Amino acid sequence: MRVRTRHGREDLRAIWMDGDVVTVIDQTELPRKFKTVAIRTCGEMAEAISDMTVRGAPTIGAAAAYGMALAWTAGEDLDKAGAAIKATRPTAHDLFYAVDLMLSKRGGDLVKAAGAYADEIVSRCKSIGEHGAPLIEDGMSLLTHCNAGALATVDFGTALAPMRLAHRSGRKFFVYVDETRPRLQGAKLTAWELLNEGIDHAVIADNAAGHYMSRGEVDLVIVGADRIASNGDFANKIGTYEKAVLAKENGIPFYVAAPVSTFDFSLASGSGIVIENRSEEEVSFVGGRRISPEGSKALNPAFDVTPARYVTGIITEKGVLKPGEAASALARG
Amino acid sequence: MRVRTRHGREDLRAIWMDGDVVTVIDQTELPRKFKTVAIRTCGEMAEAISDMTVRGAPTIGAAAAYGMALAWTAGEDLDKAGAAIKATRPTAHDLFYAVDLMLSKRGGDLVKAAGAYADEIVSRCKSIGEHGAPLIEDGMSLLTHCNAGALATVDFGTALAPMRLAHRSGRKFFVYVDETRPRLQGAKLTAWELLNEGIDHAVIADNAAGHYMSRGEVDLVIVGADRIASNGDFANKIGTYEKAVLAKENGIPFYVAAPVSTFDFSLASGSGIVIENRSEEEVSFVGGRRISPEGSKALNPAFDVTPARYVTGIITEKGVLKPGEAASALARG
Repeated sequence: MRVRTRHGREDLRAIWMDGDVVTVIDQTELPRKFKTVAIRTCGEMAEAISDMTVRGAPTIGAAAAYGMALAWTAGEDLDKAGAAIKATRPTAHDLFYAVDLMLSKRGGDLVKAAGAYADEIVSRCKSIGEHGAPLIEDGMSLLTHCNAGALATVDFGTALAPMRLAHRSGRKFFVYVDETRPRLQGAKLTAWELLNEGIDHAVIADNAAGHYMSRGEVDLVIVGADRIASNGDFANKIGTYEKAVLAKENGIPFYVAAPVSTFDFSLASGSGIVIENRSEEEVSFVGGRRISPEGSKALNPAFDVTPARYVTGIITEKGVLKPGEAASALARG
Repeated sequence: MRVRTRHGREDLRAIWMDGDVVTVIDQTELPRKFKTVAIRTCGEMAEAISDMTVRGAPTIGAAAAYGMALAWTAGEDLDKAGAAIKATRPTAHDLFYAVDLMLSKRGGDLVKAAGAYADEIVSRCKSIGEHGAPLIEDGMSLLTHCNAGALATVDFGTALAPMRLAHRSGRKFFVYVDETRPRLQGAKLTAWELLNEGIDHAVIADNAAGHYMSRGEVDLVIVGADRIASNGDFANKIGTYEKAVLAKENGIPFYVAAPVSTFDFSLASGSGIVIENRSEEEVSFVGGRRISPEGSKALNPAFDVTPARYVTGIITEKGVLKPGEAASALARG
């Protein structure tokens, strides 16, 4: 991703390894402050995952792989190192997958293996961008929700990859960025990525998305996905379902961008997806200040499920798939 | 409205006059702090309107009337007093209406006239409550957006009046309170009113409303309105349109609660309603802290227009009207 640093505009990843040091963009300080953190041991990497210096499932996967590489170069016990990394965060499947992948390669060069793993994530995201970019025409207004960007996926992003590539090929377009309460990843992270890439955009309250759709001011919606069922139903950040219904109601194409690994073919439909309820404080407090009265409770579902009938297409590294046909198309290879 | 004060639970209005003092609930401090402010002159009243110590169009109307009453008791020039009050805020029609009404009664007792004007607002809201309360059945879950409560309407509220009366008659139900970004009137004011009234509720991110609707966990939606066109299209706080579309998509009854004076029969449809765009800072900052990057712009439409086809009924002081029939029903008296 393009980032303005004190050295000027640089092309950076969310995480990379150089010699025996791994560097990560500190995502806890954005957008107020851009800074990178140097990580020299597997223990430091576990801490960076745990305190959310790095976040986003694919980026966490890469962090786990690099953490194992650091343990390997230091001659540490790899089983202990893997256990320490696995103990950091419970949800992201990529973290467990990456640790096990590195353990399976313990005879070889884990620095190379971790680098290849991160490169593979980037390569998939770039392919998503290439398949999705043609959907974006000159003069269009797009809308996205939450952050499915380079910070979360080592580079390029999923929903943001088509925008990045369309922009780099010279197309002019505008992006409405849902601020994405309660955690505000749209206002904080997506806006920061678009600003750095030089893509014209504005942050809006989530409540305003429907307003702009109803006035014909949104031409295309692209969002990410956390899990996609066989029939194309998908889970993503809370509020995605609202925007999908509003897009359909207003005749606006609605695309999901995600690597094939996001499909969970063990689920026939979205009804099997368990929704995580997170702490009340994420709703009741903003920036450390309580907004609602002491004594009023809050409910905080972190994700919702959008039925496949609202989805125009799923942009993957293998091409743009119709939601109902994705399972069979992918089975055919 | 019922309010817990240091004297225990009291029945208070948002504004009232006792002797030659007008008292208002300070709405700028809620929900952190409950306090009332004593206002002794028309000049102080103009300031309280201007700095939003009192807010909500009908409450502002009552404040204007009481301000004129204070000028009258002090023997001030009523034309000058009226001009000072009219210069406070530009939008609320009620403010101008109330000043002119008091000026037209300048031969009589303006303290009585102001009291009668405030009583009339309360009486209409109570009637809205009586007509709307039967829609709320035991065990239901409701959803509301923004604050259409007693703070905004001297007492009872519009959308909150049916809930208040149903609760007082012993019905048990639950209310999802949309926090209502960007100004958070749901989290701050509606939650405070429901907490004081003892109505079971929870604050949710606006993004979560659709999620609960899609799971069959919302039985009824009631919102207020700022302006209603002849055909039943209506303007209300930004995000209302989103919730109306989602309610219809999920087969949930969606009601608008508003006095007949909210109808603007000069407008054939909602397309004639002008939408106010407010400052970027309301989106970019929360509680004085910037959430989005310096350099990212924000867009902040304050209202949206919901077409009548999404509205099940309009709860008025004259009964519950079908949106398409309201104009003719009201013309018949």
